[in-house]
Amino acid sequence: MPRTKEANQQIRAEQREHILDAALQIFARKGLDATIDEVATEASISHGLAYRYFSSKEALIQAVVKRVTMTDPLGLQSVLEMPGTPGERLTLLVSRLLASRRDHPAFFQLINHLMDQMQNRAFVAEKQHEAFLKQSQDLFSVIRQLIVEGQATGEILAGNPDQLTTTLTACLEGLTRQAARDPEQFKRQCPDVEILLRLFKP
Amino acid sequence: MPRTKEANQQIRAEQREHILDAALQIFARKGLDATIDEVATEASISHGLAYRYFSSKEALIQAVVKRVTMTDPLGLQSVLEMPGTPGERLTLLVSRLLASRRDHPAFFQLINHLMDQMQNRAFVAEKQHEAFLKQSQDLFSVIRQLIVEGQATGEILAGNPDQLTTTLTACLEGLTRQAARDPEQFKRQCPDVEILLRLFKP
Repeated sequence: MPRTKEANQQIRAEQREHILDAALQIFARKGLDATIDEVATEASISHGLAYRYFSSKEALIQAVVKRVTMTDPLGLQSVLEMPGTPGERLTLLVSRLLASRRDHPAFFQLINHLMDQMQNRAFVAEKQHEAFLKQSQDLFSVIRQLIVEGQATGEILAGNPDQLTTTLTACLEGLTRQAARDPEQFKRQCPDVEILLRLFKP
Repeated sequence: MPRTKEANQQIRAEQREHILDAALQIFARKGLDATIDEVATEASISHGLAYRYFSSKEALIQAVVKRVTMTDPLGLQSVLEMPGTPGERLTLLVSRLLASRRDHPAFFQLINHLMDQMQNRAFVAEKQHEAFLKQSQDLFSVIRQLIVEGQATGEILAGNPDQLTTTLTACLEGLTRQAARDPEQFKRQCPDVEILLRLFKP
Protein backbone atom coordinates (compact mmCIF):
# COMPACT_ATOMS: atom_id res chain seq x y z
CA MET A 1 0.00 0.00 0.00
CA PRO A 2 1.48 3.38 -0.98
CA ARG A 3 1.94 5.96 1.76
CA THR A 4 -0.75 8.57 2.08
CA LYS A 5 -0.01 12.21 1.38
CA GLU A 6 -0.21 12.93 5.13
CA ALA A 7 2.27 10.19 5.96
CA ASN A 8 4.68 11.57 3.38
CA GLN A 9 4.37 15.05 4.78
CA GLN A 10 5.05 13.79 8.26
CA ILE A 11 8.14 11.91 7.10
CA ARG A 12 9.40 15.03 5.35
CA ALA A 13 8.82 17.15 8.45
CA GLU A 14 10.66 14.65 10.64
CA GLN A 15 13.57 14.43 8.21
CA ARG A 16 13.77 18.22 8.16
CA GLU A 17 13.91 18.35 11.97
CA HIS A 18 16.54 15.64 11.95
CA ILE A 19 18.71 17.71 9.57
CA LEU A 20 18.19 20.80 11.72
CA ASP A 21 19.30 18.85 14.81
CA ALA A 22 22.45 17.80 13.01
CA ALA A 23 23.05 21.35 11.74
CA LEU A 24 22.75 22.71 15.25
CA GLN A 25 25.38 20.26 16.49
CA ILE A 26 27.78 20.92 13.62
CA PHE A 27 27.45 24.70 13.55
CA ALA A 28 27.89 24.74 17.32
CA ARG A 29 31.03 22.64 17.12
CA LYS A 30 32.65 24.06 14.02
CA GLY A 31 31.16 27.51 13.66
CA LEU A 32 29.13 28.84 10.76
CA ASP A 33 31.93 28.03 8.30
CA ALA A 34 30.94 24.34 8.49
CA THR A 35 29.58 22.90 5.25
CA ILE A 36 26.31 21.19 4.30
CA ASP A 37 28.43 18.10 3.62
CA GLU A 38 29.47 18.02 7.25
CA VAL A 39 25.85 18.44 8.33
CA ALA A 40 24.78 15.59 6.04
CA THR A 41 27.48 13.33 7.49
CA GLU A 42 26.37 14.18 11.03
CA ALA A 43 22.77 13.37 10.05
CA SER A 44 23.90 10.13 8.32
CA ILE A 45 22.24 11.14 5.06
CA SER A 46 23.60 11.90 1.60
CA HIS A 47 24.71 15.35 0.54
CA GLY A 48 22.01 15.25 -2.15
CA LEU A 49 19.23 14.51 0.28
CA ALA A 50 20.31 17.37 2.54
CA TYR A 51 20.14 19.74 -0.46
CA ARG A 52 16.60 18.59 -1.23
CA TYR A 53 15.55 20.01 2.14
CA PHE A 54 17.78 23.09 2.16
CA SER A 55 18.80 24.50 -1.19
CA SER A 56 21.81 26.39 0.20
CA LYS A 57 23.82 26.77 3.37
CA GLU A 58 22.24 30.17 3.84
CA ALA A 59 18.78 28.59 3.84
CA LEU A 60 19.96 26.04 6.39
CA ILE A 61 21.47 28.68 8.66
CA GLN A 62 18.31 30.72 8.45
CA ALA A 63 16.20 27.73 9.45
CA VAL A 64 18.49 27.01 12.40
CA VAL A 65 18.39 30.63 13.51
CA LYS A 66 14.63 30.66 13.19
CA ARG A 67 14.39 27.65 15.42
CA VAL A 68 16.79 29.13 17.97
CA THR A 69 14.93 32.43 18.15
CA MET A 70 11.55 30.74 18.47
CA THR A 71 12.64 28.76 21.48
CA ASP A 72 12.12 30.09 24.96
CA PRO A 73 13.79 27.21 26.80
CA LEU A 74 13.75 29.07 30.09
CA GLY A 75 10.16 30.20 30.05
CA LEU A 76 11.38 33.71 30.82
CA GLN A 77 7.99 35.29 31.09
CA SER A 78 6.73 32.59 33.43
CA VAL A 79 9.64 33.29 35.79
CA LEU A 80 8.41 36.82 36.33
CA GLU A 81 4.87 35.66 37.02
CA MET A 82 5.83 32.80 39.31
CA PRO A 83 4.95 32.84 43.01
CA GLY A 84 7.75 33.40 45.51
CA THR A 85 9.96 36.31 46.49
CA PRO A 86 12.16 38.03 43.88
CA GLY A 87 15.21 36.38 45.46
CA GLU A 88 13.64 32.94 45.17
CA ARG A 89 12.71 33.53 41.55
CA LEU A 90 16.20 34.78 40.74
CA THR A 91 17.66 31.66 42.35
CA LEU A 92 15.36 29.52 40.23
CA LEU A 93 16.26 31.41 37.05
CA VAL A 94 20.01 31.21 37.67
CA SER A 95 19.69 27.47 38.36
CA ARG A 96 17.85 27.00 35.08
CA LEU A 97 20.31 29.13 33.14
CA LEU A 98 23.20 27.11 34.47
CA ALA A 99 21.50 23.73 34.02
CA SER A 100 20.43 24.54 30.46
CA ARG A 101 24.06 25.31 29.59
CA ARG A 102 25.21 22.10 31.20
CA ASP A 103 22.58 19.99 29.41
CA HIS A 104 22.52 21.69 25.99
CA PRO A 105 26.02 23.06 25.42
CA ALA A 106 25.69 22.89 21.61
CA PHE A 107 22.60 25.07 21.59
CA PHE A 108 24.29 27.86 23.53
CA GLN A 109 27.56 27.55 21.69
CA LEU A 110 25.63 28.09 18.46
CA ILE A 111 24.05 31.19 19.96
CA ASN A 112 27.53 32.46 20.75
CA HIS A 113 28.69 31.89 17.17
CA LEU A 114 25.63 33.76 15.94
CA MET A 115 26.37 36.67 18.27
CA ASP A 116 29.95 36.80 16.99
CA GLN A 117 28.84 36.77 13.38
CA MET A 118 26.12 39.35 13.79
CA GLN A 119 28.68 42.12 14.00
CA ASN A 120 30.20 41.39 10.63
CA ARG A 121 27.81 39.69 8.27
CA ALA A 122 24.23 39.86 7.23
CA PHE A 123 23.83 36.11 7.60
CA VAL A 124 20.19 36.25 8.60
CA ALA A 125 17.18 38.15 7.43
CA GLU A 126 16.59 41.43 9.24
CA LYS A 127 13.51 40.02 10.95
CA GLN A 128 15.43 37.12 12.47
CA HIS A 129 18.28 39.39 13.44
CA GLU A 130 15.81 41.44 15.44
CA ALA A 131 14.18 38.40 17.02
CA PHE A 132 17.60 37.22 18.04
CA LEU A 133 18.66 40.52 19.59
CA LYS A 134 15.33 40.72 21.37
CA GLN A 135 15.88 37.31 22.93
CA SER A 136 19.13 38.35 24.56
CA GLN A 137 17.67 41.69 25.63
CA ASP A 138 14.70 39.89 27.19
CA LEU A 139 17.00 37.75 29.29
CA PHE A 140 18.88 40.86 30.45
CA SER A 141 15.61 42.63 31.32
CA VAL A 142 14.15 39.74 33.27
CA ILE A 143 17.31 39.29 35.36
CA ARG A 144 17.54 43.02 35.93
CA GLN A 145 13.92 43.26 37.02
CA LEU A 146 14.32 40.44 39.55
CA ILE A 147 17.44 42.13 40.92
CA VAL A 148 15.68 45.48 41.33
CA GLU A 149 12.71 43.80 43.03
CA GLY A 150 15.04 41.79 45.25
CA GLN A 151 16.94 44.92 46.23
CA ALA A 152 13.64 46.48 47.26
CA THR A 153 12.80 43.53 49.53
CA GLY A 154 16.38 43.46 50.86
CA GLU A 155 17.05 39.95 49.56
CA ILE A 156 19.63 41.17 47.08
CA LEU A 157 22.61 43.37 47.80
CA ALA A 158 22.22 47.01 46.86
CA GLY A 159 24.25 48.21 43.90
CA ASN A 160 23.97 49.14 40.26
CA PRO A 161 21.54 46.60 38.74
CA ASP A 162 23.01 46.98 35.24
CA GLN A 163 26.45 46.02 36.54
CA LEU A 164 25.07 43.07 38.48
CA THR A 165 23.12 41.84 35.48
CA THR A 166 26.12 42.29 33.20
CA THR A 167 28.30 40.29 35.57
CA LEU A 168 25.87 37.37 35.60
CA THR A 169 25.27 37.30 31.85
CA ALA A 170 29.02 37.61 31.20
CA CYS A 171 29.67 34.72 33.53
CA LEU A 172 27.09 32.56 31.76
CA GLU A 173 28.52 33.40 28.35
CA GLY A 174 32.07 32.62 29.49
CA LEU A 175 30.95 29.29 30.96
CA THR A 176 29.30 28.38 27.65
CA ARG A 177 32.49 29.16 25.74
CA GLN A 178 34.61 27.14 28.13
CA ALA A 179 32.18 24.22 27.95
CA ALA A 180 32.42 24.25 24.15
CA ARG A 181 36.22 24.34 24.15
CA ASP A 182 36.74 21.52 26.61
CA PRO A 183 33.56 19.67 27.62
CA GLU A 184 35.36 17.12 29.81
CA GLN A 185 37.28 19.69 31.81
CA PHE A 186 34.15 21.79 32.08
CA LYS A 187 32.16 18.96 33.66
CA ARG A 188 34.77 18.73 36.39
CA GLN A 189 34.99 22.48 36.99
CA CYS A 190 31.50 23.83 36.31
CA PRO A 191 30.53 25.96 39.30
CA ASP A 192 27.61 25.11 41.57
CA VAL A 193 24.75 27.55 41.36
CA GLU A 194 25.53 28.74 44.90
CA ILE A 195 28.77 30.27 43.66
CA LEU A 196 27.02 32.42 41.08
CA LEU A 197 24.39 33.45 43.60
CA ARG A 198 27.07 34.93 45.83
CA LEU A 199 27.16 37.84 43.44
CA PHE A 200 23.76 38.86 44.76
CA LYS A 201 23.86 38.00 48.45
CA PRO A 202 23.32 40.92 50.78
CA MET B 1 72.50 62.54 2.93
CA PRO B 2 71.31 58.94 2.44
CA ARG B 3 69.99 57.12 5.46
CA THR B 4 72.38 54.77 7.22
CA LYS B 5 71.76 51.04 7.27
CA GLU B 6 70.83 51.30 10.96
CA ALA B 7 68.31 54.06 10.30
CA ASN B 8 66.71 51.96 7.58
CA GLN B 9 66.50 48.96 9.85
CA GLN B 10 64.87 51.04 12.53
CA ILE B 11 62.31 52.41 10.09
CA ARG B 12 61.52 48.90 8.91
CA ALA B 13 61.11 47.67 12.48
CA GLU B 14 58.78 50.56 13.32
CA GLN B 15 56.73 50.04 10.18
CA ARG B 16 56.42 46.34 11.04
CA GLU B 17 55.17 47.15 14.54
CA HIS B 18 52.75 49.66 13.07
CA ILE B 19 51.29 46.97 10.78
CA LEU B 20 51.06 44.54 13.69
CA ASP B 21 49.17 47.16 15.72
CA ALA B 22 46.71 47.57 12.87
CA ALA B 23 46.40 43.80 12.43
CA LEU B 24 45.60 43.38 16.10
CA GLN B 25 42.80 45.95 15.87
CA ILE B 26 41.34 44.49 12.67
CA PHE B 27 41.54 40.84 13.66
CA ALA B 28 40.01 41.71 17.02
CA ARG B 29 37.15 43.57 15.39
CA LYS B 30 36.46 41.33 12.41
CA GLY B 31 37.87 37.97 13.39
CA LEU B 32 40.63 36.06 11.65
CA ASP B 33 38.70 36.11 8.36
CA ALA B 34 39.71 39.75 7.88
CA THR B 35 42.00 40.38 4.91
CA ILE B 36 45.46 41.94 4.57
CA ASP B 37 43.74 44.67 2.55
CA GLU B 38 41.69 45.62 5.58
CA VAL B 39 44.81 45.63 7.74
CA ALA B 40 46.60 47.86 5.22
CA THR B 41 43.68 50.28 5.20
CA GLU B 42 43.66 50.41 9.00
CA ALA B 43 47.43 51.09 8.93
CA SER B 44 46.98 53.73 6.19
CA ILE B 45 49.47 52.03 3.92
CA SER B 46 49.16 50.36 0.53
CA HIS B 47 48.29 46.70 0.11
CA GLY B 48 51.67 46.23 -1.62
CA LEU B 49 53.65 47.70 1.25
CA ALA B 50 51.84 45.46 3.75
CA TYR B 51 52.79 42.43 1.63
CA ARG B 52 56.44 43.49 1.65
CA TYR B 53 56.42 42.99 5.42
CA PHE B 54 54.17 39.94 5.58
CA SER B 55 54.14 37.68 2.56
CA SER B 56 50.78 36.09 3.44
CA LYS B 57 47.94 36.43 5.87
CA GLU B 58 49.18 33.32 7.64
CA ALA B 59 52.55 35.01 8.22
CA LEU B 60 50.77 38.07 9.59
CA ILE B 61 48.56 36.03 11.92
CA GLN B 62 51.58 34.12 13.16
CA ALA B 63 53.40 37.37 13.93
CA VAL B 64 50.38 38.71 15.80
CA VAL B 65 50.02 35.49 17.78
CA LYS B 66 53.71 35.54 18.61
CA ARG B 67 53.38 39.03 19.96
CA VAL B 68 50.28 38.13 21.99
CA THR B 69 51.89 35.06 23.53
CA MET B 70 55.10 36.90 24.40
CA THR B 71 53.24 39.52 26.37
CA ASP B 72 52.66 39.12 30.08
CA PRO B 73 50.61 42.28 30.59
CA LEU B 74 49.60 41.27 34.09
CA GLY B 75 53.01 40.31 35.40
CA LEU B 76 51.46 37.06 36.62
CA GLN B 77 54.58 35.74 38.29
CA SER B 78 55.17 38.98 40.14
CA VAL B 79 51.66 38.75 41.65
CA LEU B 80 52.55 35.51 43.38
CA GLU B 81 55.78 36.94 44.78
CA MET B 82 54.27 40.24 45.91
CA PRO B 83 54.01 41.14 49.60
CA GLY B 84 50.55 41.12 51.19
CA THR B 85 48.04 38.45 52.14
CA PRO B 86 46.67 36.05 49.51
CA GLY B 87 43.35 37.92 49.65
CA GLU B 88 45.07 41.24 48.98
CA ARG B 89 47.01 39.81 46.08
CA LEU B 90 43.88 38.25 44.60
CA THR B 91 42.12 41.62 44.87
CA LEU B 92 45.03 43.25 43.07
CA LEU B 93 45.05 40.62 40.34
CA VAL B 94 41.29 40.81 39.73
CA SER B 95 41.54 44.61 39.54
CA ARG B 96 44.29 44.33 36.96
CA LEU B 97 42.43 41.69 34.97
CA LEU B 98 39.36 43.87 34.83
CA ALA B 99 41.24 47.09 34.07
CA SER B 100 43.28 45.46 31.32
CA ARG B 101 40.07 44.36 29.62
CA ARG B 102 38.58 47.82 29.98
CA ASP B 103 41.69 49.51 28.57
CA HIS B 104 42.71 47.05 25.85
CA PRO B 105 39.49 45.42 24.61
CA ALA B 106 40.94 44.67 21.16
CA PHE B 107 43.82 42.69 22.60
CA PHE B 108 41.53 40.40 24.59
CA GLN B 109 38.96 40.10 21.85
CA LEU B 110 41.74 38.86 19.58
CA ILE B 111 42.71 36.30 22.19
CA ASN B 112 39.10 35.11 22.22
CA HIS B 113 39.08 34.73 18.42
CA LEU B 114 42.28 32.76 18.66
CA MET B 115 40.79 30.49 21.31
CA ASP B 116 37.74 29.88 19.10
CA GLN B 117 39.87 29.06 16.09
CA MET B 118 42.24 26.77 17.90
CA GLN B 119 39.60 24.07 18.03
CA ASN B 120 39.18 23.91 14.29
CA ARG B 121 42.24 25.01 12.41
CA ALA B 122 45.97 24.70 12.61
CA PHE B 123 46.38 28.42 12.07
CA VAL B 124 49.56 28.71 14.09
CA ALA B 125 52.72 26.72 14.39
CA GLU B 126 52.65 24.03 17.07
CA LYS B 127 55.12 25.97 19.21
CA GLN B 128 52.93 29.06 19.32
CA HIS B 129 49.84 26.98 19.94
CA GLU B 130 51.55 25.61 23.04
CA ALA B 131 52.74 29.02 24.20
CA PHE B 132 49.21 30.25 23.84
CA LEU B 133 47.63 27.40 25.79
CA LYS B 134 50.27 27.78 28.47
CA GLN B 135 49.40 31.45 28.90
CA SER B 136 45.78 30.72 29.69
CA GLN B 137 46.73 27.80 31.94
CA ASP B 138 49.17 30.04 33.82
CA LEU B 139 46.42 32.53 34.56
CA PHE B 140 44.17 29.74 35.82
CA SER B 141 46.97 28.37 38.04
CA VAL B 142 47.87 31.71 39.55
CA ILE B 143 44.25 32.53 40.42
CA ARG B 144 43.73 29.04 41.79
CA GLN B 145 46.85 29.24 43.93
CA LEU B 146 45.81 32.57 45.46
CA ILE B 147 42.35 31.14 46.21
CA VAL B 148 43.80 28.08 47.94
CA GLU B 149 46.18 30.24 49.97
CA GLY B 150 43.36 32.65 50.83
CA GLN B 151 41.14 29.78 51.93
CA ALA B 152 43.94 28.65 54.27
CA THR B 153 44.13 32.10 55.87
CA GLY B 154 40.34 32.35 56.03
CA GLU B 155 40.22 35.41 53.75
CA ILE B 156 38.46 33.51 51.00
CA LEU B 157 35.33 31.42 51.32
CA ALA B 158 35.84 27.67 51.46
CA GLY B 159 34.74 25.71 48.41
CA ASN B 160 36.06 23.92 45.37
CA PRO B 161 38.94 26.11 44.09
CA ASP B 162 38.58 24.82 40.51
CA GLN B 163 34.95 25.93 40.44
CA LEU B 164 35.78 29.32 41.90
CA THR B 165 38.60 29.86 39.41
CA THR B 166 36.39 28.72 36.53
CA THR B 167 33.68 31.17 37.56
CA LEU B 168 36.10 34.10 37.60
CA THR B 169 37.79 33.27 34.31
CA ALA B 170 34.39 32.66 32.66
CA CYS B 171 33.17 36.00 33.89
CA LEU B 172 36.25 37.76 32.50
CA GLU B 173 35.85 36.04 29.15
CA GLY B 174 32.17 36.96 28.95
CA LEU B 175 32.94 40.57 29.81
CA THR B 176 35.53 40.71 27.03
CA ARG B 177 33.02 39.35 24.52
CA GLN B 178 30.37 41.83 25.59
CA ALA B 179 32.85 44.70 25.42
CA ALA B 180 33.74 43.71 21.86
CA ARG B 181 30.12 43.49 20.76
CA ASP B 182 29.01 46.82 22.16
CA PRO B 183 31.83 48.97 23.58
CA GLU B 184 29.58 51.91 24.45
CA GLN B 185 27.05 49.85 26.35
CA PHE B 186 29.86 48.01 28.06
CA LYS B 187 31.40 51.21 29.40
CA ARG B 188 28.12 52.01 31.08
CA GLN B 189 27.57 48.52 32.49
CA CYS B 190 31.06 47.18 33.23
CA PRO B 191 31.01 45.90 36.82
CA ASP B 192 33.15 47.39 39.56
CA VAL B 193 35.83 45.07 40.83
CA GLU B 194 33.99 44.78 44.16
CA ILE B 195 31.19 42.86 42.43
CA LEU B 196 33.56 40.21 41.08
CA LEU B 197 35.28 39.94 44.44
CA ARG B 198 31.98 38.96 46.07
CA LEU B 199 32.49 35.53 44.55
CA PHE B 200 35.31 35.01 47.05
CA LYS B 201 34.15 36.76 50.20
CA PRO B 202 33.84 34.52 53.24
